[in-house]
Amino acid sequence: MTTPVPYVHGYSENEARRLGDQADTLAELLHADTRYPAGSRVLEAGCGVGAQTVHLVASSPGMHLTSVDISEESLAQARARVRAHSDAHTSARVQWHRADLFDLPFADGSFDHLFVCFVLEHLRYPLKALAALRRVLKPGGTITVIEGDHGSAFFHPDSAHARAAIGHLVRLQAEAGGDSLIGRRLQPLLTEAGYDGVTVRPRTVYADATRPALVEGFTRDTFTAMVAGVGAQALAAGLTTRADWERGIAGLHRTAQAGGTFHYTFFKATAVRP
Amino acid sequence: MTTPVPYVHGYSENEARRLGDQADTLAELLHADTRYPAGSRVLEAGCGVGAQTVHLVASSPGMHLTSVDISEESLAQARARVRAHSDAHTSARVQWHRADLFDLPFADGSFDHLFVCFVLEHLRYPLKALAALRRVLKPGGTITVIEGDHGSAFFHPDSAHARAAIGHLVRLQAEAGGDSLIGRRLQPLLTEAGYDGVTVRPRTVYADATRPALVEGFTRDTFTAMVAGVGAQALAAGLTTRADWERGIAGLHRTAQAGGTFHYTFFKATAVRP
Repeated sequence: MTTPVPYVHGYSENEARRLGDQADTLAELLHADTRYPAGSRVLEAGCGVGAQTVHLVASSPGMHLTSVDISEESLAQARARVRAHSDAHTSARVQWHRADLFDLPFADGSFDHLFVCFVLEHLRYPLKALAALRRVLKPGGTITVIEGDHGSAFFHPDSAHARAAIGHLVRLQAEAGGDSLIGRRLQPLLTEAGYDGVTVRPRTVYADATRPALVEGFTRDTFTAMVAGVGAQALAAGLTTRADWERGIAGLHRTAQAGGTFHYTFFKATAVRP
Repeated sequence: MTTPVPYVHGYSENEARRLGDQADTLAELLHADTRYPAGSRVLEAGCGVGAQTVHLVASSPGMHLTSVDISEESLAQARARVRAHSDAHTSARVQWHRADLFDLPFADGSFDHLFVCFVLEHLRYPLKALAALRRVLKPGGTITVIEGDHGSAFFHPDSAHARAAIGHLVRLQAEAGGDSLIGRRLQPLLTEAGYDGVTVRPRTVYADATRPALVEGFTRDTFTAMVAGVGAQALAAGLTTRADWERGIAGLHRTAQAGGTFHYTFFKATAVRP
């Protein structure tokens, strides 16, 4: 984050709530198999508003977690979120640092494990970030990376306007220096960044009328809300008209109604520092 | 299949081999959790060249399997394939019938279970087919449906030509009356066709350099081979130029080389006749 990339989703209160809802819905899917041993030193690189931190802390209460972010404001929200979700003893154990991922204030090999979730998609130089992170990981330590890929979104009924709206989000994020199609690149990125034992697996959200909590929690309140959230930017950038944008968002909402279906793939990667 | 839809992939020897390779690579992913009890009466509707039949027979050796297809030639190949993959006793137990899915020569409720794999995508009236199949299923019996969805294909490096080539296959199949994006519709289709307890789950193939057998077996020899197989049709239909088509196929092959990744989602549905 030495390259100051504007966070495409913004920093509003609604956005913080969206990230919280998203993490709760997806927690089981993304985090259920991440457990760090008691006493292990874990770095969460790019904790944002703490949406993933609360799940890390709940799953591995005995670890020593250090969470860093480039934004002082996000760190304050993350700290409050962890305090609200954990007992006083647990939340007091988390170390919070405002820091730049490319210039971390930690000695070489300071951590047993690294955790990076929904961060690389916002960076102009994700490969450089992974290589910089490797320095603070001890040899034999693991890195876990979780990212989405907006190219994985498809749905019924299909809608050209909805696909276009997603395309506008992808483009805005690309123009901000990020890559919302990064999930498919995790394996080559980690390999090129010098990690061993790279293992990447898809983690798919599929929602239809038989899974109403996912329809509401993911299709509507996570994905559609995320796309809707960049409407003003898409209009300001002249990517679309108000009418077409509204058709796109309506098309996404339609997939959350009876007979609709929605598919989205996250990728979870693990690798080891040689 | 009362509506004679040309089978978009053709009936060549190469195509039969492709379907065999595909089934072997995917067998674990798609079929591992399908087991029918000894003595149960199972109908495989649309067995084609028997690519799935051999796995059904291997997984549930005690069932009474009846496999039907509209093509006499495919049935002959299916029978030979099962004979080559099973012992004489097992292969002799399979009943083969040339029949129309919309007009099956079986009494109401003749079967305990129905199995339908890679069939609905080729039908002009998949909803009508599912409703017709329901008649021969006993109340309380199950139907299992497996279909792909070509809209789920994404890959690294991304390639506009490769995406266009896939789009041409989707269009050719649509013009032949089929729907290669049908996976996302299984839940509403089964519900509308009068089944209960509809459960649909994605079955995702993700291949990268760390999984060379999948890269070869799926990315190259299944998916890329399938797209490449409709090149002559795409050119004859004027959908593309030879140069663009070759760029598209080269783009798909590139995803099977070092640093490439490939993602594709099948959908597996189960439901019950009320």
